[in-house]
Amino acid sequence: MAAVPAVLVRARELVEPALVAAVDRLCDELRLPARYHFGWVEADGSPSTAGPGKGLRPALAVLSAEAVGADGAVAVPGAAAVELVHNFSLVHDDIVDGDVERRHRPTVWAVFGVDDAVISGDALHNLAFQVLLDTPTGQSGGEPSPERVRATIRLVTATTAMIAGQSADMAFDDLPEVDLAACLAMEADKTGALLGYSASVGAVLAGAPADQVDALEVYGQELGLAFQAVDDVLGIWGDPSVTGKAAGNDLRERKKSMPVASVLSGGGTAAAELRAVYDVAGDLSDDDVERASAVIEAAGGRDDTIAEASRRLDAALAAIDGVGLEVGAVDELTGLARFVAEREF
Amino acid sequence: MAAVPAVLVRARELVEPALVAAVDRLCDELRLPARYHFGWVEADGSPSTAGPGKGLRPALAVLSAEAVGADGAVAVPGAAAVELVHNFSLVHDDIVDGDVERRHRPTVWAVFGVDDAVISGDALHNLAFQVLLDTPTGQSGGEPSPERVRATIRLVTATTAMIAGQSADMAFDDLPEVDLAACLAMEADKTGALLGYSASVGAVLAGAPADQVDALEVYGQELGLAFQAVDDVLGIWGDPSVTGKAAGNDLRERKKSMPVASVLSGGGTAAAELRAVYDVAGDLSDDDVERASAVIEAAGGRDDTIAEASRRLDAALAAIDGVGLEVGAVDELTGLARFVAEREF
Repeated sequence: MAAVPAVLVRARELVEPALVAAVDRLCDELRLPARYHFGWVEADGSPSTAGPGKGLRPALAVLSAEAVGADGAVAVPGAAAVELVHNFSLVHDDIVDGDVERRHRPTVWAVFGVDDAVISGDALHNLAFQVLLDTPTGQSGGEPSPERVRATIRLVTATTAMIAGQSADMAFDDLPEVDLAACLAMEADKTGALLGYSASVGAVLAGAPADQVDALEVYGQELGLAFQAVDDVLGIWGDPSVTGKAAGNDLRERKKSMPVASVLSGGGTAAAELRAVYDVAGDLSDDDVERASAVIEAAGGRDDTIAEASRRLDAALAAIDGVGLEVGAVDELTGLARFVAEREF
Repeated sequence: MAAVPAVLVRARELVEPALVAAVDRLCDELRLPARYHFGWVEADGSPSTAGPGKGLRPALAVLSAEAVGADGAVAVPGAAAVELVHNFSLVHDDIVDGDVERRHRPTVWAVFGVDDAVISGDALHNLAFQVLLDTPTGQSGGEPSPERVRATIRLVTATTAMIAGQSADMAFDDLPEVDLAACLAMEADKTGALLGYSASVGAVLAGAPADQVDALEVYGQELGLAFQAVDDVLGIWGDPSVTGKAAGNDLRERKKSMPVASVLSGGGTAAAELRAVYDVAGDLSDDDVERASAVIEAAGGRDDTIAEASRRLDAALAAIDGVGLEVGAVDELTGLARFVAEREF
């Protein structure tokens, strides 16, 4: 596995205090599930050794400020806000998907119940806007800056897309067939929109010109699709000790992820065989999952998805070329993109 | 029952088109549960005769614009936004409370499942901010007005309070005792904050001076507590054919509403008797519910709560007196408050 890019650690050190302070603003009952979810404490409130997530979104936010020549600290409210939205969606998605484990720990609903998980997610969602619209210390007049207002509007838009993507993903479960284009459109909404936001919010808060903001946003959106393609491969062939999920998990849940959609939309005997496995009534057996996985691999669904990840990585890097961004930040954005898109399978 | 104030109909006619247009912006999968929830369609998408809710919040918003001398239409984005937040909270609360019926119809989760109800609620929550921050047609520059930004910040704050109140309400279920002060603080958050917002957002959008905005907000907050006190009485002694809920519903759910908290914090034999009923393991029988209801009534919990509603109504009306608001609007605000606080028990 490639070395972890330094910016992930650097951005966490910059952003985590703001995130902790934001979560501390929640009322007593909601603070604990939120702090548990972030990996800061255990369910009883004692310190946790779980450690946080990768922090990809804060790193993108910080680099996007630096890419337009601003200090990375300018990105902090945007980075904290996008982490809050991302994590609200994880808390709610785990309810929707019935997932009992995330990052090798029981999910919030599994520990605190569905009720507290619904409300905690709502609180994190709302807190994101609170953090972003808060008047920065020392600014007179008590009004948020135009840059913060712009960053808020963009967050609302990205969150709308994310929710629509999650909803489309759920709807796929009831469709007999999903083609690759529909799958990519869903994943662009579900993952791409928020990564596009992350990769541009620092530039927005720094007041950068539109062409640089747009370039960074496209980088993030394409990176989101590369990330998702890799995730979809890992969801079938990933090592459970690394992914924290059972082998073939996405197949067991009959997900219509990229490798599956790619085979289904290819037609022929492979599509028919895969459809036959998914049409089995009740839970899929380990044998069913292995058979589906073998069919997809033989029909090229795995290779196609890895190729898609590679194309999206190229598109991400092309987007930030030639728009006058700071060279050092572009290097770090490139390293981060490669780290995400070239995770070992 | 007193005649329905004309402003409820007038405000609905003004605000509903904006609300329908907002909900139409949702993706296909989320539009149906949302439109079903608002009572516009049945679960299969066919037109519904269910009819909408009372529309108290839009009416308050419209009157708050008129109270500061502006056209009621100025309030529309705020009125639509607060209806979206209110209804997102209803969709999620019904999951949390396990309620299968609202306004004499099955709740969203009961019809579409918990998964769709979680995500639909999230979408309505986010849509509220989208509606409010949308650039008004014809305004140049594409930036929201300072008044809209201010209205957004206030909505974020009110929603934070509402979520904290809902969370405190849930936490009460696990506490052996809740005193009246804690109950009122919870209800001020859960209901008062959003009614305070509703009753001032029109004035905020009209750019009214702070003392008028504040007076209208206090009116709404106090009205919220009056409303909640009446609701708590109806939750125990209300006519099921009017409330749409089983008789004694709040007792069956062991809610620590105002009448219950008032008796528990009074101590003595009544508190002990009530505690004994609530301590029964498993579901409460009809006999348990009747016994609890009789104990509360005999100990004065019902009368105390009706008196609280009356005090809060007086405080609401006092708040909007003498701050130079338009006389016609104050008359309508007064009529609306009396209609809400003097519902027949």
